[in-house]
Amino acid sequence: MSAPIRVLALSGGIGGAKLALGLTHAMAPERLMIAANPGDDFEHLGLTICPDLDTLTYTLSGLSDREKGWGRAGESWNFLAALDAFGGETWFQLGDKDLALHIARAHRLASGESLSAITGDICRRLGIAAHILPATDAPLRTIVETPEGPLPFQRYFVERRAAPVVTGFTFDGAAAALPSPALAEVLAGGMLEAIVVCPSNPYISIDPILAIPGLRDALRGAGAPIVAVSPIVGGTAIKGPTAKMMRELGRPVSVQGIAAHYGDLLDGLVIDEADREAADELRAGGLKVAVAQTVMRSDADKAALGEVVLWLAGRCRGAE
Amino acid sequence: MSAPIRVLALSGGIGGAKLALGLTHAMAPERLMIAANPGDDFEHLGLTICPDLDTLTYTLSGLSDREKGWGRAGESWNFLAALDAFGGETWFQLGDKDLALHIARAHRLASGESLSAITGDICRRLGIAAHILPATDAPLRTIVETPEGPLPFQRYFVERRAAPVVTGFTFDGAAAALPSPALAEVLAGGMLEAIVVCPSNPYISIDPILAIPGLRDALRGAGAPIVAVSPIVGGTAIKGPTAKMMRELGRPVSVQGIAAHYGDLLDGLVIDEADREAADELRAGGLKVAVAQTVMRSDADKAALGEVVLWLAGRCRGAE
Repeated sequence: MSAPIRVLALSGGIGGAKLALGLTHAMAPERLMIAANPGDDFEHLGLTICPDLDTLTYTLSGLSDREKGWGRAGESWNFLAALDAFGGETWFQLGDKDLALHIARAHRLASGESLSAITGDICRRLGIAAHILPATDAPLRTIVETPEGPLPFQRYFVERRAAPVVTGFTFDGAAAALPSPALAEVLAGGMLEAIVVCPSNPYISIDPILAIPGLRDALRGAGAPIVAVSPIVGGTAIKGPTAKMMRELGRPVSVQGIAAHYGDLLDGLVIDEADREAADELRAGGLKVAVAQTVMRSDADKAALGEVVLWLAGRCRGAE
Repeated sequence: MSAPIRVLALSGGIGGAKLALGLTHAMAPERLMIAANPGDDFEHLGLTICPDLDTLTYTLSGLSDREKGWGRAGESWNFLAALDAFGGETWFQLGDKDLALHIARAHRLASGESLSAITGDICRRLGIAAHILPATDAPLRTIVETPEGPLPFQRYFVERRAAPVVTGFTFDGAAAALPSPALAEVLAGGMLEAIVVCPSNPYISIDPILAIPGLRDALRGAGAPIVAVSPIVGGTAIKGPTAKMMRELGRPVSVQGIAAHYGDLLDGLVIDEADREAADELRAGGLKVAVAQTVMRSDADKAALGEVVLWLAGRCRGAE
């Protein structure tokens, strides 16, 4: 990496990819590294599917389906229809274009390349200036604990549509996982100016990353302020099961609940204007707070939120 | 298998699949077994591609591209275009629908199912009444010997467009290959009425099957006449490199050359009307001969040729 990385973002899901795109407009994208949640990854039909990594790749290359937020624009589904015709497993949506990534990746993984090396190569070839990588090259898979027993994440999320009550999470493989080499290098390099926790689901997007042994300490020790954007806005989540999970786990569904979840990891928190009245309480708890429009509809919204996040990180640095 | 198999066809390539389709119209298809050439199979992008098996599957299920003779009708190519965009290997054409078969098969092979079991299941689900199977479940791969060295078949055929001069063939893995269990059972069962060698390339479609240790003897010992349809018509091949290979190997490019190649394997040979004048010489050599329209353009042509083949086998039986 020629230009040193100045900003590291931790990202999962669609909200994470949106802010990552915003950051690429708010700064020199080649100075941005985005570590993707590996917890959603799974093996399917002999392929390794990495939904959060791929959403980042498609979003930052301009290939994404902006309507749905995941998958590729102008996607076709002829593979899936043909698979269905002879009884193949079709519960997970795999588009024809999307398959190119999964097949090329599975083939390269099988020949011994690391997930982060493959991702870096594909992102370069797609013209992405920012550095997208999995938080770890090791398999680290979220297991959702429910009253009916543990469910692998995609079974819970896609097949069961996030319906079962959540009682907790485990991260299979975490104990043996190391941070991706380039991520470890950036964390140890002392050149970071900001670490951004994207407005992703804390339990299933960010906690899997934090479950990598030593990573939480490495983030805290990187010498850069850590600022998050709350995925909870006005007592609910923009998208996905974050609010449902917080309720089921008996946590307050609020920006305070998000702050409490991350605890001393955070230096700053960006909250939505809808939660303005919580700012004082958060500040009293020791956080720097920015109040902003955090619902990202347009590209301008994303870039503006990226600027707020970087501004808040700057304020945290100034306060040190 | 409830109904005993009465006819066994050995098939490779497009000509083989055409006659196999013709046979399904000339007899009860559930009494027909078609053993496909495994020699064209290869590993590509982590998938196991079985071109001859798949051409049979698509032809007999009505899914084939009748224009091209291979692949699926109404195919789309979005996977390949997406793969190309990040530098993947695109020299082998893989359509979006076609991928369903390759991915499902690779996944099932990796989980320990045999190629013949997977093929049988998929053919049943696609409504194919005839029994299509690979001649062997073991990898048995044609290597083309050329002055520039040995070339794996698909590299020779697709990537090099069959341009290099051929000096011979080897069949990698043949020594350890066993006939597919259902094929061995049919050959040993004593219920066959005819064995058909389709108008396929003798070197790269039929010889790989005959390279399975013991198979030539098992065919001869099955108690049924063996009749071939000449892939050479009027001194050339309808399609593909058969004539070119015969020339390069110094063999006469004629129906006599085909008869000489198979030698004492054959009881009968169907030749085209264009080669009528060779019939007496072939009969003098001990073969039963039928002269027919062997160029299969329409489905009626295919069915008619199927009937001729079965009729010739009947004549061979009557003569015993």
